[in-house]
Parts: sequence; structure tokens; C-alpha cells
Amino acid sequence: MNIGIIGLGLIGGSIAIDLKNKGSDWRVVGADQNPAHAAQALALNMVHEIRPISDVIKQADLIVVATPVNSLIHLIPEILSQINDHQTVVDVGSTKWPVVQATEQHPKRARFVAAHPMAGTEYSGPHAAVPDLFVHKCCVLCNPRDSAPDALDTARNFFELLGMRIVALDAREHDLHVAYVSHISHIASFALALTVLEKEREENRIFDLASGGFSSTVRLAKSNPDTWTPIFQQNRDHVLDVLDEYINTISRFRTLLIKRDFNTFHQLIRHANDIRRIIG
Amino acid sequence: MNIGIIGLGLIGGSIAIDLKNKGSDWRVVGADQNPAHAAQALALNMVHEIRPISDVIKQADLIVVATPVNSLIHLIPEILSQINDHQTVVDVGSTKWPVVQATEQHPKRARFVAAHPMAGTEYSGPHAAVPDLFVHKCCVLCNPRDSAPDALDTARNFFELLGMRIVALDAREHDLHVAYVSHISHIASFALALTVLEKEREENRIFDLASGGFSSTVRLAKSNPDTWTPIFQQNRDHVLDVLDEYINTISRFRTLLIKRDFNTFHQLIRHANDIRRIIG
Repeated sequence: MNIGIIGLGLIGGSIAIDLKNKGSDWRVVGADQNPAHAAQALALNMVHEIRPISDVIKQADLIVVATPVNSLIHLIPEILSQINDHQTVVDVGSTKWPVVQATEQHPKRARFVAAHPMAGTEYSGPHAAVPDLFVHKCCVLCNPRDSAPDALDTARNFFELLGMRIVALDAREHDLHVAYVSHISHIASFALALTVLEKEREENRIFDLASGGFSSTVRLAKSNPDTWTPIFQQNRDHVLDVLDEYINTISRFRTLLIKRDFNTFHQLIRHANDIRRIIG
Repeated sequence: MNIGIIGLGLIGGSIAIDLKNKGSDWRVVGADQNPAHAAQALALNMVHEIRPISDVIKQADLIVVATPVNSLIHLIPEILSQINDHQTVVDVGSTKWPVVQATEQHPKRARFVAAHPMAGTEYSGPHAAVPDLFVHKCCVLCNPRDSAPDALDTARNFFELLGMRIVALDAREHDLHVAYVSHISHIASFALALTVLEKEREENRIFDLASGGFSSTVRLAKSNPDTWTPIFQQNRDHVLDVLDEYINTISRFRTLLIKRDFNTFHQLIRHANDIRRIIG
């Protein structure tokens, strides 16, 4: 099977690595509009070959589009206009409603499967790609009834091959869901990093940040703005709702400190501990 | 050398494990006011023996006090009243100014070294104790000129034996420092956990939280309220200052979303990326 991967960063690159490791059934052809990234992917032996995007679209049985979400909404309809009824297109973006809307009226809509493999790290580019990134993680397929059954099967088999669990979800529900479980975590981390960096500037000294739990909460603050700004742009309304709730909750802790109500403070922490039930 | 460890939870227990692994030069005697914890520590082979606190205070050359910070401020002065001039007492609490104040006028003040080994996990109790928790981490010794030179040497050698780097700091500076690098991270995590748990309750469904960066930012929300409430109580003023800055920074992201100013949003993320310089 010929797989074309457009965009060879963290996600596209990690997919390429896993497929190449699966053996000779898979021929992995890559494309990246950034020539340096394309050259890196080839040098790192992540793909069998690099081709122009137009060739990848012509030749691949399955076309995986792994570009930032602002590019997806233009690129997916363009690709759909160039393929035949035996080819399948999937995206891997973190927001799903905008790309579903952008393809809604397209005559080839049924060849497209809107997907979000929920895996990643705070790093980006071909050098960030790692094997087995997707194993045991969740892949959301959105509005599956808008895809042809055979396209859906191709996408499902593909993500299962990567080791993922498949979940079907309405695109708008998905976008609200990720505002809670991913997007707000990123803003919390960015703000934490900025708060400490500002203090460091004022105090003109380096804090020892390797300890004290700071590293894990701030890890996501290393995330690429080119990837994340379009995600926040597309998911603005949901993120604003969650952000308001988050600010309210933080403000509750503030009020309890001001009132020195440490009994309620203790109860709130105990309640937060309940997250163990969900993340183990 | 006889080491007495009072409080055999995550920190005291992890110290005990490392010392016992260092070999026969160290005799590790433990005490814990919770009999279940004392029995667990013995069953887990973390200490050579368990003794009543009063015996530990009598026999140990170095007494390590690893109880919650609200207990420390009473326990340290009591211990100092019972020791001779060849014994040394160190604490390992996350706040330092309150315990420094509580011992300031004590006739045996010079036998005490106020210490904060900056290491930990989100778990608590003897079962949370792990080997090598402190290796390559930073240990802050506060107001070292208030300690006798030999007591300070004993404390320094002890934490270096655990693999730590030693930093000297004024107690008030330390408390401001940890408000930034540790305490605010905990509140950010607690609030994130509560925001998602509240949404989960409303929606009556389980989110898939294993992916999407949520787990790492919310890890600290599992932290023990008995450990952490007294820390926030003692460091209230600094935490409030940092919390205000954090809420302001979060609110900047909110305002940019409302105004759809994604250029500035992008710049803020890029600025936050600068945290790489500090945490690598």
C-alpha cells in the first residue's frame, strides 16, 4: 500500500517511522513544503522517498495530511479535488469542526476521514518524531457517517496499525472535549512559564527550576507557536469558555488564601485528588 | 553514625532507603507518630529499627525531621530542648521562614540547620518512598550563619551523600523562590483538575485524559492535602503575590482570544518557549 504523508513534523514524522518499521507492505512517500524538513526526513530515513505534493496526491492510496490546522482547511479540499474514488484522505489536526465545515459541500467529501490521533510531545519538526508515539493512545474519528464505509475502514485500520484505540465523536463535541483535556493545559503552562520568566527578569537571577514540580507543569510551554496559535484561533469559543472556568477556579483558591480559610482549601485539594480516578 | 528520621513518608522514607543502601556506616532509626506508617517502613526494610520519638532524639547523632510544615514549627524547638551540643537537627520542609522564626530565640538554635531538599513526587506515605530521589537535585540551606559550623558541615555532608547540590539562601528569599517554582505549579494543577472534574460531572461522561498533555500538567493535583495545605498556610503572602501575577497572565491570553489578536498570542507563546533556556 502506498502511503503519502504531507507534513513531516512531530506527528507526520512519527507516523512515517512506525509505518516504515512495519515492513515491506508499506511504501511511505513524504512531502513537506519546507525543503529543510523534507531533507531531514529523508536523511533520518523516515520515508522511502520525498516527492512533490502533487505527485504524492496522485500516487498514494492513503494520503495523511499532518500540517498545522490553519493550512488543513485549505489543503484538504484541494486534495479532494484531485483524487479518485479509490483514494482516501485523513487529517490529524487537533481541531475538527473547522475542517469538517470546510469539506462539507465538497463532491468528494466521502473520501475524507476527519481524524485526531491524540498523542504528541512539546517538540516539533522531523527531529521530534519518535517511534511508537501512538501506541495505546486514543484516536478520535469525527462525523464518521460523512465518510464512505471503505474510506472509514482504511482510516480505522491505519490508526489501529499504529496501536491506537478508535473513538467516534461529533466534530463539535470533539472540539469542546480537547479544549478541556489539551488546549487549557497548554495555556496554563504558557502562563506559568511567562510568570516565572518575568520574575526572573526582575530579579536578574536564575531560579533552580529543575525541582519542585515546575518542570512537569511547564513542559507544554515549549510547544511550537506555529502549531498552537491556529489551534487556539480555530477553537477560540470553546477555549474561552474553559478559560473562564479555569480562572474562576484559580480565583477560588485566591479567595480562600485571602480569607485564610484553610479548611475549605484542604477540601478543594482533596477534591482535586479525585483526578487519580481518571488519570490513574 | 546514628541517623534518626522522624516522619517516614515520601521524603523521610526516601532518605532512609538511600542511607541504608550506603552500607554499614549508617544506622537508620525511624519514628512516625502514625503507627501504621512506622510498621510499613519496617516491613519495607527502609529503617534498621523503629523507636519512640524520644529515643530517637536521645540516640541519634543527626536527627532529620520530615513531618508536615505545621508540625515542624512545634517539633523542632521541642527537639532542640532535648539534645546536647554534639547532635545536629535538620528539617526538610518546603517553607523555611516560619521554622527559622520559631527557633530564632532558642538557646540551642546553633544545632539546627534549616534545609529544603527540593525533590519529591505527587505521592505520599512510606509506600511512596523511592531510592535516589535526591540525586542531582538542589538542596537549599537557609540562614547558614545561624547554625554552628560543625552542624552545618554535618548537614552539608549528609545532603551531598544523597547526591544533592547545596545552595545557601536567606529563608524569606527561599520562600518567595518556592512560591514561584513549586507552590504556584500545584495550584495551577489543582485548578485544572477541578475544572475538568466539574465538567465531567455535568456531562456525565469520562473524558479520555491519557493523551493531549493533560496528564503532565495535572500530575501535581494528586498531591496530599495534609502536606500541602500547611505549606500554603505558611507561605500565604508570597503565594498570593504569585497567584495574582499568574491570574493576570492567564487573563492576558483570555483578552487576546476575545480580541482575536492572534499575532500577539503567537508572540506570547514564543516568549513562553524561552523557558527551554531554563528547564532544558
